[in-house]
Order: sequence, then C-alpha cells, then structure tokens
Amino acid sequence: MTKKMWGGRFAEAAAATVEQYTQSESFDRALYREDIKGSKAHAAMLGQCGVISQEEAGELVRGLDQVLSEIEAGSFVWRRELEDVHMNIERRLTEIVGPVGGKLHTARSRNDQVALDLRLHVSARLEAWSGELARLAGVLCDRAAEHANTLLPGCTHLQPAQPVSLAQHLLAYAQMFRRDHARVADCLTRVRVSPLGAAALAGTTHAISPAQVAGFVGFPSTFANSMDAVSDRDFVLEALFCGSLVMMHLSRFCEELILWANPNFGYVKLPDAYSTGSSIMPQKKNPDVCELMRGKTGRGYGALMSLLTLMKGLPLTYNRDMQEDKEPFFDADRTVSASVSIMADMLGVLQFVPAAMRRALARGFLNATELADYLAARGLPFREAHHATGAAVALAERKGVALEELSLEELRSFSPLVEQDVYAVLEFESAVRRRNLPGGTGPEPVADQLAVLRTWLAGLR
Amino acid sequence: MTKKMWGGRFAEAAAATVEQYTQSESFDRALYREDIKGSKAHAAMLGQCGVISQEEAGELVRGLDQVLSEIEAGSFVWRRELEDVHMNIERRLTEIVGPVGGKLHTARSRNDQVALDLRLHVSARLEAWSGELARLAGVLCDRAAEHANTLLPGCTHLQPAQPVSLAQHLLAYAQMFRRDHARVADCLTRVRVSPLGAAALAGTTHAISPAQVAGFVGFPSTFANSMDAVSDRDFVLEALFCGSLVMMHLSRFCEELILWANPNFGYVKLPDAYSTGSSIMPQKKNPDVCELMRGKTGRGYGALMSLLTLMKGLPLTYNRDMQEDKEPFFDADRTVSASVSIMADMLGVLQFVPAAMRRALARGFLNATELADYLAARGLPFREAHHATGAAVALAERKGVALEELSLEELRSFSPLVEQDVYAVLEFESAVRRRNLPGGTGPEPVADQLAVLRTWLAGLR
Amino acid sequence: MTKKMWGGRFAEAAAATVEQYTQSESFDRALYREDIKGSKAHAAMLGQCGVISQEEAGELVRGLDQVLSEIEAGSFVWRRELEDVHMNIERRLTEIVGPVGGKLHTARSRNDQVALDLRLHVSARLEAWSGELARLAGVLCDRAAEHANTLLPGCTHLQPAQPVSLAQHLLAYAQMFRRDHARVADCLTRVRVSPLGAAALAGTTHAISPAQVAGFVGFPSTFANSMDAVSDRDFVLEALFCGSLVMMHLSRFCEELILWANPNFGYVKLPDAYSTGSSIMPQKKNPDVCELMRGKTGRGYGALMSLLTLMKGLPLTYNRDMQEDKEPFFDADRTVSASVSIMADMLGVLQFVPAAMRRALARGFLNATELADYLAARGLPFREAHHATGAAVALAERKGVALEELSLEELRSFSPLVEQDVYAVLEFESAVRRRNLPGGTGPEPVADQLAVLRTWLAGLR
Amino acid sequence: MTKKMWGGRFAEAAAATVEQYTQSESFDRALYREDIKGSKAHAAMLGQCGVISQEEAGELVRGLDQVLSEIEAGSFVWRRELEDVHMNIERRLTEIVGPVGGKLHTARSRNDQVALDLRLHVSARLEAWSGELARLAGVLCDRAAEHANTLLPGCTHLQPAQPVSLAQHLLAYAQMFRRDHARVADCLTRVRVSPLGAAALAGTTHAISPAQVAGFVGFPSTFANSMDAVSDRDFVLEALFCGSLVMMHLSRFCEELILWANPNFGYVKLPDAYSTGSSIMPQKKNPDVCELMRGKTGRGYGALMSLLTLMKGLPLTYNRDMQEDKEPFFDADRTVSASVSIMADMLGVLQFVPAAMRRALARGFLNATELADYLAARGLPFREAHHATGAAVALAERKGVALEELSLEELRSFSPLVEQDVYAVLEFESAVRRRNLPGGTGPEPVADQLAVLRTWLAGLR
Repeated sequence: MTKKMWGGRFAEAAAATVEQYTQSESFDRALYREDIKGSKAHAAMLGQCGVISQEEAGELVRGLDQVLSEIEAGSFVWRRELEDVHMNIERRLTEIVGPVGGKLHTARSRNDQVALDLRLHVSARLEAWSGELARLAGVLCDRAAEHANTLLPGCTHLQPAQPVSLAQHLLAYAQMFRRDHARVADCLTRVRVSPLGAAALAGTTHAISPAQVAGFVGFPSTFANSMDAVSDRDFVLEALFCGSLVMMHLSRFCEELILWANPNFGYVKLPDAYSTGSSIMPQKKNPDVCELMRGKTGRGYGALMSLLTLMKGLPLTYNRDMQEDKEPFFDADRTVSASVSIMADMLGVLQFVPAAMRRALARGFLNATELADYLAARGLPFREAHHATGAAVALAERKGVALEELSLEELRSFSPLVEQDVYAVLEFESAVRRRNLPGGTGPEPVADQLAVLRTWLAGLR
Repeated sequence: MTKKMWGGRFAEAAAATVEQYTQSESFDRALYREDIKGSKAHAAMLGQCGVISQEEAGELVRGLDQVLSEIEAGSFVWRRELEDVHMNIERRLTEIVGPVGGKLHTARSRNDQVALDLRLHVSARLEAWSGELARLAGVLCDRAAEHANTLLPGCTHLQPAQPVSLAQHLLAYAQMFRRDHARVADCLTRVRVSPLGAAALAGTTHAISPAQVAGFVGFPSTFANSMDAVSDRDFVLEALFCGSLVMMHLSRFCEELILWANPNFGYVKLPDAYSTGSSIMPQKKNPDVCELMRGKTGRGYGALMSLLTLMKGLPLTYNRDMQEDKEPFFDADRTVSASVSIMADMLGVLQFVPAAMRRALARGFLNATELADYLAARGLPFREAHHATGAAVALAERKGVALEELSLEELRSFSPLVEQDVYAVLEFESAVRRRNLPGGTGPEPVADQLAVLRTWLAGLR
Repeated sequence: MTKKMWGGRFAEAAAATVEQYTQSESFDRALYREDIKGSKAHAAMLGQCGVISQEEAGELVRGLDQVLSEIEAGSFVWRRELEDVHMNIERRLTEIVGPVGGKLHTARSRNDQVALDLRLHVSARLEAWSGELARLAGVLCDRAAEHANTLLPGCTHLQPAQPVSLAQHLLAYAQMFRRDHARVADCLTRVRVSPLGAAALAGTTHAISPAQVAGFVGFPSTFANSMDAVSDRDFVLEALFCGSLVMMHLSRFCEELILWANPNFGYVKLPDAYSTGSSIMPQKKNPDVCELMRGKTGRGYGALMSLLTLMKGLPLTYNRDMQEDKEPFFDADRTVSASVSIMADMLGVLQFVPAAMRRALARGFLNATELADYLAARGLPFREAHHATGAAVALAERKGVALEELSLEELRSFSPLVEQDVYAVLEFESAVRRRNLPGGTGPEPVADQLAVLRTWLAGLR
Repeated sequence: MTKKMWGGRFAEAAAATVEQYTQSESFDRALYREDIKGSKAHAAMLGQCGVISQEEAGELVRGLDQVLSEIEAGSFVWRRELEDVHMNIERRLTEIVGPVGGKLHTARSRNDQVALDLRLHVSARLEAWSGELARLAGVLCDRAAEHANTLLPGCTHLQPAQPVSLAQHLLAYAQMFRRDHARVADCLTRVRVSPLGAAALAGTTHAISPAQVAGFVGFPSTFANSMDAVSDRDFVLEALFCGSLVMMHLSRFCEELILWANPNFGYVKLPDAYSTGSSIMPQKKNPDVCELMRGKTGRGYGALMSLLTLMKGLPLTYNRDMQEDKEPFFDADRTVSASVSIMADMLGVLQFVPAAMRRALARGFLNATELADYLAARGLPFREAHHATGAAVALAERKGVALEELSLEELRSFSPLVEQDVYAVLEFESAVRRRNLPGGTGPEPVADQLAVLRTWLAGLR
C-alpha cells in the first residue's frame, strides 16, 4: 500500500470530500430568517451610528428583504460550494445591491454573526416549545376535569397502593410540563443576549452600538465579554437539557399508556390515528406513537451528550468544532416539538375506560391504608395500626374476600377501636374524598389544583 | 449445571447478597442531618395541628435532637440491616422516647420523607456551590485587575488572531461562572419545594399542614400534586446538569492552562502545590491538578447520564429504581465543589509570564485586522480592505518582517488611503486600546466589566 | 473580595485539599494484588535477564510476598499521603528489603506499571463476569426445561401477538447472555496484552524481556508500540461497553418481571427474599430487586460515558486525566457482577404462574395468525389470507366469542378453503407445536436450542 | 383553552402530523438494496423449499430486480404515505408481477425482514470501515517510514519527557486503528446472523429453510431463538461503540495536529485543502478539518447513547421504539467513514516540519532520563540515580546550559560513576537508538513494527 494508491486520486477527490465534510449549508440554511434578521439589524445600526451612511443602510436592508423574498418564494439558488448560509446570502445581496454589499461585514465577524443567528433561532424555537407545552398542559386539564370522579389504582413499584382519581394522575403530568415551561423560560433569559459587536473575539474599533442591534432583534441584553460571546454555547446546551427533560416526562407517560393499552390493563383505547393495526389481528392496536415517542427520548439524550462532549476541553475562543452545535439542536427541536404537539392531540381523543380501572381497583386491598389511618386517628401509634391492619388483610386474603367484607367482629378482633363507621371509611370513593389536603387526590384539592393551572395558562396568552 | 448447584447455598447466601444490593445505608447516611431536620419539622407541625399532642411533639423533637448529637459525637451505631438512614434514626428514636416514637410516622411515608431529605441536601449543596462559584469569580477578578495591561495572542481555531488583554481572557471565564451561578439560582427555586404531606402517593387523611413543614425547613413552597411530589426527580437532574456545565467550563480553562504550561507556550508557571515533578527531570512540572480536573468532567457527565437513563420510561409514582438517585449526586457534588474550590485556590497563586505572552504576540501578524479596519474606517468597503491587507501581509511575510516594519510607501502601494498615522494603529497596545466598546478587550470596557462583576459579587454577601 | 480573604488560609489548606483531590490510594488500593503480581514478574524477569542479580530478584520477590501477606492479614498501614497503591507498596518493600528495593523500578515507569495493574484487574473481573453470565444462562436453561409446555402470550408492541412457550421466552434471554459472554471473550484478547517495558513512553534502554513478564502474569502477548502502551485505555472502555449491554439485557428482563408481578398480569410470584412488603398491605410484594437492577443500568451507561468523555481529545501519551479510569470500572464491575449473580439466584427460586398465563392467552385472538397461515398453506396469497382472517376475527369479536368458537359455516364464509381440520390448527398448543423450525417456539426446536446451550455451558467448565 | 381549540383541526391535521412522525421512508429508503437482496433470497428459498412454485419464485426475483433497476435509475416513485422502504418496494413489486407479489410475504414478517435489512446494511458498512481503517493505517505506515529518523519531544502530561521518533508517534495511531479493525471484525461475527424465519416473533409453520436464506445473502449463521431474533439490536450498539472508539482515536490525533499547527509548536503545515484561511490574515491557516473531526466525536458518542437509552427496559419482543435504531447508525456511519477517509487523505499530504521539532527538543532536558539510566546501568539503585540526575539538571538550569554542556567534572560531582562516554549517551539520536527493545522507539523495533503492520495490511487484500 503505497502513497500512490490513494495519492493519485487526491487532487480531484479531496476538494469534493473535504467540501462536503466542512460545509454547513445543507443544514444551516434553516437559519436564513435569523441570518437576514440579524443582518438587517446590523445594517440599520451601522447607519444610525454613522459607520455607514443612512442611504447605504437603507440599500442593505432593502437588498436583504429581497433575498428573504427570493428564499421564501423558492427562487433563491443555494450553492453548496459557498459553504454556509451566511456566504450564500451575502453573495446574493452583493449581486443585488452592488459593492455596498461589502460594507455589511463592517464591524462584524462570522463568529458573532453565527452566534446571533443561533441565539435567534433557539429563542424562537423555545418560544414555540412553551406554547406547545402549555397546550399539552391545557389538554391534560380538560381531560382531568372530565375524570375528577374516575378512580384507578395508584401504584408505587407498579404495585397497586391506594386509589387515586384519574384527574390527579393526569395532573401529575401537567405539573411536570409546567416545570418544563418554567425551565424553558429561565433558559430564554440566557439565550436572549445579543453577541453582535464581539466581532471575531476581541470587539471592534468601530463606534457601533451593540445595544441597538439587540433592541432591533428583540433581545433584552448584550454580551458582557467579547471572548465569551463568541465561544459560549451554554444556551444551546441548556435548551437541549430542557428538551431532554420534556422527553423524559413524555417517556413516562408513554410507558403508562402502553401498559394501559395492554388487554391485561385495558384502561385506555387508543385512537385509530395513533395506533397501527395488524392486517391479521384487527383487535390488535399497537400503540406505535407512544412507543416511538418513548424511543425518541434516546434521541434527545444523545443530542445533549453530543454537545457536552464537543465542548469539553475546548480552548478559547471560537473553534470550528462548534459548527457541530446546530444539527443536535435541530434534531432535538424536531423531536421535542413534534412529540409534545402529538401527545396533546392524541390525549384529546384518547378514550379512557373507567370500568376497567374500577375492576382493577377490586384486585388489591387498596383500602388497607384507610383502616390503618382509621386506627391511628383513634389513637393507636401508627406502627401498631399498620400491624393490626396487616393481620386483617391477611385474614381477608385467607377467606378470599375484600377487607370491607369482613364482619365488624372480625375487624374488632384486631383492635377494639374499630366501630361500625369503619365501613364508610373503607369505600374507595371515601378514601379518595378524605385526601383533601392541598395537593392530595381528593376532589377539592384536585379542583383547586386545576384552577391554579388554568389561571396560569390563562395568564400566558 | 443443576438447580442444586446454587440452590443449596441459597437460603444462607441470598439474605446477605440481596441485603447488600438493596441497602442504601452505606451512602444515604450522609443525609442524617436532613432526615432529622425534616422529622423535627414534621413532628412540630403534627403537634401544632393537633394530630399528636404538643407534649408528644416535644418528646419527638428532643429525641431527634439526641439522635443528632449521638451521630455527630460518633457514638451512634449504624446498622446495615436496617437498610437506610430513615430506619436507623427511627429505631434509635424509639429506643430513646419509647412508643411515642411510632407516632412520628403519622401522615408521612418513606416516599415523601426521602424526597424531602434529598431536596434539603441538594438545596444545601447548591448553596455551597454558589458560594464557591462566587469565590472563583472573585479570584478571576483579582487576577484580571492585576493584568489589565498584559497582552497575549487571542486565538480562534487555536491560531493567533488578535491581541487581547489577559484581563479580558480571564473575565471570559468569570462570565461563565456567573452564568453557572445564575443557573444554580434558577434550579434552587425548583429544589425548594416541600413534598411532605404527599405521603405514599395520594396525600393523607390527617389534618396536617404541608406549608408549616415547608416553613420550618425554610422552603418557600409546597408540592402541587401528591403523585408528582413522590416521583419527581427533575431537581436532581437539573442540579447535575448545572454541575456538568461547571465542569465543562473548568475543562476549558484547564485545557488552556495545560497548553500554557507547555514550554512551547510558557505563559504560566504552575505553583508547586498544584503540579507534580518528576524525580528525574526537576524542570518538569506536570499540571496534574488541571489534568485531573479536565478528566473529572467525564465524571460529571456520567452522573447526569446515569440519572437521565434511570428516569426514562418509569411509570408513576415512586419506583425503587429511584434509590439510585443519590450516589450520582453525591459523586458529582464532591467533584464540582472540590474542583471549583481548588481552581480558585490555584488561580490565586498561579504565576503568569507576560514576557512569554509578548514573545508569542510577535509571531503572528496579530495586527492585520487593525490595518483592515483602518482602511474600512477611511471608506473602503470591508471586503476590499481585507483584500488589500492580505496583500500587505503577504509582502511582509516574503520580506520576513512585521507589518509595522513595512515602509509607508510599501503600505500605500496596496491602498492610497494609508497615511503616516497607520503606525500608531498597528501597535498592539493601540489595537487593544481602541476596542473600547462595551464588552470589548479595551482597558475601559474591561474596567467597566470588572466593576459590574464586583458589584454583583458584593451584592451576594 | 480580595486575595487576602482566601489567601490567608492557603498555605495550610492547599496541601490537604490538593492531596485529597489528586490521591488515588483510597480506591486504587483495590489493585494491590495485581500490583504485587506485576512487580514480582518484573523482578523475576530483571533477574533472569541479568539486569539485576538473581539474589536481588529473589529478595525483591520475597519482600513483595511479605507485603502481600501483611495486606491480606490487615496489618499493612496504608498512607494516604503516599498517594497511590504503588508508592505504598514500594515504600513498605524498601523497609523490608533495604536499598535493593530501589532496583525494582529499574526499566519500569509508573505509566507502564499502572497500565499492567489495571489490565490484570480487568482481566480477572471479566473472567468472573464470564462465570456469572454462564451461571445465569444455566439457570435460564433449567427453568426453561421445566416450562417447555407452559404457554403465554408472546407480545410485540406489548400487545398479545402469538402464543409462545415460556421456555422460548426464557431462552431468548439465555441467548443475550451468551452473546455477552462472547463479547467479553473478544474483549479479553485485547485486555491481555502486557504493557510492561514501555516504561514512561518510549521503551527502555535496559536489556529486559517484555515477553517474559507477560508469560509470568499469564498474558499471551505484549505491547506493539510503547507510546500506545501507556496511553491506551480501549480495553477499559470495551469492558464498560460489555457491562452496559449486560445491564441493558437485565433491564429488559427486570421490566418484564415487574410487569408480570403486577396483579393485572400475575404471571410470577416473587420470592420474599427478592421483594419487600409493606407493613400495611401484606399482599403487596414490591419487586424491589428488579427495580433497582433496572435503575442500575443508568449506572453502567454513566460509567461508559465518563470514560469516553475523558479520553476525547487527549494528546499522547499518558495524561493524569487517566487516573479517572479506575473508579468507573470498579463501580460498573460491582454493578454488573452483583446484578448478574443476584438475577441468577432470584430466577432459581422465582415462581411462575402458568394458570395466569393461560388466562391471558384467552384474551387476545392469539391464534389469528394460525388461520391466516392455514389459508396461505392452502394456496391463498398471504395478503388475502390475512384479510379473510381479519374479517373472521371481527365477526368473533362482535359475537363475543373466541375464533375457535365460530362455526365451520361461519369460517367458510370468509374462505371456502376452510375445512373441519381448522379447529385442530386453532388450538394454542398446536400453534406452538407447529412452529418447529430451528429457532422457533415449537417443543422440538426449543429442546434443540436447550441442548446446544447446555453443550456450550458444559464446554466452559 | 378548550378541546375545541385544537379539536377542530384534528381530523385533517392528525393524519399528516402522525404520518410524518411515524413514517420511516425518509430515512430507511437507504436500505433499498438490502431489502431487495433479502427479499430475493427469501423468494428463492421459498421456491426451493416448495412453499411456492419455482415459477413464482422466478417471477418474484425478476420483479425485484426490476424494482432495483428503477430505483437506481431514479425512476422509482417513493411514497411517504406507504410509510417505509418495505411497503414501497412491495407495492411496486405487486404492480409489476401481479397477485403473486402477495406471496413474497409468506413465512415472513416485517419484524424479521427489517432486522435482516439492517444486519445486511451494518455488515456492508462495517466492511467499508475496515477498508478505510486499513487505508489509514497504511498511510500512517508510509509517513512513518519517511520519518524514521525525525525526532520530536515525546510528551507525558503534555510536558516534554523523552525524545521519540515521529515514526513511533505515528505508529501509535496505527496500532489504535488496527485495534479498531479487530473490534469491527469481532462485531461482524455477531452482525452476520440471519434472523429470517423468526417471522413476527415465534417462528413460522411453513417448511422453510432459514439457513438457505442466510447462504443466499452471505451470512454464515442463522438465529438461535425467534424472540431474540426480532428484538435484538446488540449488533447495532456494538457497531456504534466501535465507531465511537474510532472517533475517540481520531479526536486525539486531531488534538495533536491542532496543537502542532499552532505557531508556538509549528511541527506541521496543514495542506491548503484541509484548512481555511482568513481573508484578513493570509498567514493564518485554521485547522478546520481537524477541529470538525474532533467535534464530530460528540456525534458518535451521542448516537451510541441514543440507542443505549432506547433499549433500556424494553420488554420482549419487537417494539416500535426500535424504528429509531437506524438514524443513529446512519449518522454515525457517515461520520466515521468520512472522518477516517479524510484523515487518510489529509495525512498523505500533510507536511511535517522536522526543524521545528528539533528546536523544541532543545528546550526541555529531554535526555535527563539517559543520564539516570546510565548511572543505574553502572549499578546505582534507580531511585538514587534519579536523584543525582535531578541535581545535575538543576545545575544546568541555573547555568542556562543543556545537560550535555556540563563538564565531565561537573557531572562527576553528582556521581563518580560518570565517565567520558556519557556524552554519547546524552545525544538525542543515541537516546532513541538505544531504546531498541520490541515496541520501543529505537529504529530497529520501529522497523520491525512497521514490517508487522505491513504484513497485516498485505494479508487483508
């Protein structure tokens, strides 16, 4: 194996393979809106600061608007060999406006330009996530409102533990997505910092106004340190982390829906549009959408891990490694926003089967805690109340009956504190009803919780 | 291989191996302070709400105080077979106070208890991180203040690009750690939510006050949904993510210090205490602390990935998988807090070598941008100014001289806009001085930046 | 915040914090056996090669044996300030044998020494994993042999699809663990390469014999390149990957056991020793061991991610970052070996509930494929056979009966190819029996599969 | 926010969003070759086994060949709404051959079909990786052969330690890629197992021959267990792990090249085609390709983590989550194969600068070890030899001279064992030459190493 073996083909081939390896146009063209928005803001500011004339600024802005129209009309010709979205747009701008196009790059470098573009993009997408998370929380509220009185076995360790309302179960997810919403809001304060003016790494000698650019693009603040401005990707990492938690929450919900759709549970009927049948077995509805969504969690985690790995040990300031920051975010964004949106849609038309939930309730002494609490409320130390209850359940199990089917005498044999009123306590509805502390599964706290969530949602509009 | 082969030993062995596998006492005993704090709050609240008598509450609190004293005095006997910190403490409490000890568990489950303990612990540790991050930012400010006039080559792509001040370079890191501090603060608002009162998963029937418990332990809010309260671990994940970014930032700084300590750079002399020598080569100072710190980044990422994996697809509510939430956090906490603290210490005594930085400045036409900006400021479109500068540099390179060593005539051959004043522009000090926009590397914006950081730090005390 | 704030305490504190940060003695002392084994091999080789005298070699070997005895007897005093296992042992050796102890380090560096120690350790632990994986596969074979005729619903998408034997289901896991065993064997060929003789990075000038050392420690080969030898950690990464797949396989099995233990399934009764009860609900058996094992998967993945991150972008050769290679492996090793072993123990005493599996079989038209295959075998294109079957199932569903409860006339209405013999085909046992291709769920291929596995296991002894 | 808000648009929108979410055609059409190859093998086998007639088999094979031609000619119309590559091909086949097309699906399910397709694809790609890894190792050999006598500072801790030959340094990487090659070969034995005949999960009732299909597609073995066959994705994970290690190795090399291209090192000149200039600074050559390659390591790790996460806790057998197994592999494959190939190309034309390496050698007492070894070889215990050398280096440092510039008298003041011949020992060439043990940096072992590598490479053709 000599050098000639591959050396011969080098001259021709290298150009093409390296160009393909290093180009970003195939994916960063997705940033054209942000690139043009940022360039218009830069041009306008240059004009207002007198770095270029107002006429020149106006020409640049008009030229950029024309480029935008061409792209959106589909008539713009993207050229891979121009490497990235920035050069594609700049070249066309110069064709349109002539030499003045070259002035757009005054007091700006690719390094601060791409950072701004990505920040604008992440900002817009996180805002979209917020809207979708709120919509999903809204659907959860709607379905919870329908099922305030539907009871099912609440599980710990996937073993039936205590009866809960389906409303409480659904609102547990609403709380998760509300937290996701809050995390995204926190992240946005760190995303919306304009890096323009940092130039290549050291700032610029031109008398420009970074704050004005920030104002034009709608960002509340500007960079504090030029070297940090061009080498910081915390904001993407934080967005990817927010997305990973959203997917994790969805994966938990999907896992439950998949279980609930299994005939041994039978708690839900999946809408046709969100499941696939099998041409052999028409009764078979595979919860494909839920499975895929659970699987896509890996995708979200993988994107986060990609960028964490990339940033490890990078010296200041900009390094080309960072070009790889976009695709993980684009992929995670597609995954997160489609998943949240489809979950909201699916949940809206999902059919719950209260009768199946009720049947499952009968199978697990889910009111044992009630008896223990009943005894404790009558003064028995809690550990002793537990013990007496354990004995009662053991007897019921031996007799093959439910706890409430034991006679008063039998129950009193475990503790003389038991009275006739115990039977009302043992009813599932009553068990749920009496958990009426804030945050509990009782109807009142659930209604309160729902009201708080709806007030929050109303405030977002 | 028949069942007998291993079946025989089962009866004896299983107990031991399973006990070892499932116990958490060996690591969760680190939570004893939080467990006792939470139990005291719970007991006091039970007394005030009349669920138990005030005397009983008093006895429980005194008993818990005694347990605390015993643990801190080292006289407490931890028992592995009691499985976890909660049972170890509860058992000893009952020995001390007698049967009333059993009442502590009224209206509380292990599920909400452990969630509170971990939240208290994470809260305390994040507060400690905040302090250490601020101290590190403070040291960076101190060193930056010393080196406002020390210049070095600012790099992009690890290639010399433009001169920057060492102050600006160091403050770029201060900005990263300030962002970390802000992220930790955001995280804390989600950590400091008391889950007590969620009980096993559904809330409790006792007339207790979750808000009172929260008040006693110093948390501003309480859980919104009992099922979420016992199954949520977002707060640990978020803390692990914050820690991962801290380590990522440190890894970048370490990478630079390792490079700078290499004799080809020679920008720093590592203090003896933070490097190891070699018994053969006394001139050799290995930057061991920096290398280890860079390596420990993997540890932080790994902890985050562990818990993300664990939570994927877990159905509601508490699952025993979650017992594995503690060790990743404990490990990441040790890593993050030791690393930040040691970096602050090391940085305080690190010796910079301005002469070596200055020598490196001479090696890279770092003032080329100045010439281009000079021409652009005189009206040449930027792309053309770049081109003229490129030609000038090429000439200088051919002649083996620096840019500022070309004659005015030579320079004017590339553009008639060049005047005598260009030589002042080409000085490195001047290049840095003129980058005096907010956030730039010029002395004024650096001083402003420093002042803002110090105001922030002063406000934290 | 001035330097004095923390500067004052520096002199005293730095030593302690840095020592704690950089020491490895607290964890690498676990390598004492390997360190002594490697040193004995090195000493013996030095003697045979004439680099030191045979008497000196003998003294070193005897001294090392004494150190080993002291450590195993518990009389050895470990000193944190000596930093690592190597210096602790070397210091004690020199106390015992006097100045000749210094000769042990001839032609050896810490860099090749620690690489050998870790390779010896990983080698021993992977061998242990192999044994445990084989034992687990053996238990799966035993339980499969018991349940060759136990049928349960085979699922795709967690929806009942076709009946399978429990034997086939269990052997699917045996196949996974067999693959894990093969992967570990492949990994071992890359672990068992002796790096001794690479010295610091460049090899040594002494006339030593690396191959002899390899022979002494039982490794079949020696390093090919000294720089690679001291900077390669592929072997640990590969071991961590093998461990991650083992945990992934266990997580799948645990997930199924947790589902099967839910009363809606009821396919298994967990042995008391592997589940925890609740003092309230004696019927409640939480599958804690399975949950923890599933959760520990995250731990395995995290360890792999730690080391992958650490190695990214490290220049040649040894860097101190690599000290962080040990704890992830130690942790993963504890996780993997305990998990495999406990799964084998638990599986041996797990009680399957064939009646519950049989009840579940009735709930899902699991013989629909049989009808389709029956029609296809009689010449109907498969897609058409599927369609006819779909229509038959739809009718049965409407009538609330099983497929085999439809009359011949009804069945023939979907295809005239149906004859009386269809009813035999629709029996679950028959459905399983006829899947008698190699690898299928029929009794014959399952018996063959079992025989192949047992032959493999027998060959391992 | 009521149901109506989104409910209204549901009927129209759901179909489209869900279809987009669940379809795989957009990426799995990359498997068309493998899908057709597998289907042809299946059809031929069905014919030979008499499940269908030989004529039917012939028609199917011819039809499939026509589909292949159409795809490769670009005339095939892909339809997103047919969901995946399998249905797209099957539909077109049926158009071409008529109803007999339906028979192709006899005794086969999508589950075993897609598993075969992916195995064929991974197999082909790993073979391609092997070729590229070998080519890269070949280039490393060629460049090493050129630089057998080029010396540079060998580093530990990125500090100069001992002189090594550039050949040895380059061959360290060749060894890594050789190990990667071996790992890929091991992986291939587990990839090349045909799952066809496992059908949906339980095997089939048709008298088919899985072994024959395996033979047709060139796989040496067939599945052992049908349930495992359709739910196993170990082979993709193992391929992703192999790819991650390849990228990790490349990231180390890239890190070094980036350092070496920094003017403070100056060891390499990057070819124009593999670096980008800056329009301002013509002397600036950014090592973009190396940076991007280092960054893409994150991509490889992320893909591995995605699939590990996905598989965690999945019950048997096929779950739709697994559809997400393809894109991570496709992405990792593009990354790995382009990176290896481009590294080979780039390395072939990279210009090393021996003079710069030689200058760096002078800066670091890199021959100190020689003096210590010299003393040890004369009988001084090694620890004492180290100490004497340390003192000599300290003196040289104080005097500002190299070690070899100390007088014999001065050297003897540290040990009377020093003689005139020490000066020959202190030459860098001599230091390298005397490391002539197998695997060392001396010219002989390097030549041997090179010969072994070239024999290996020759054997691969």
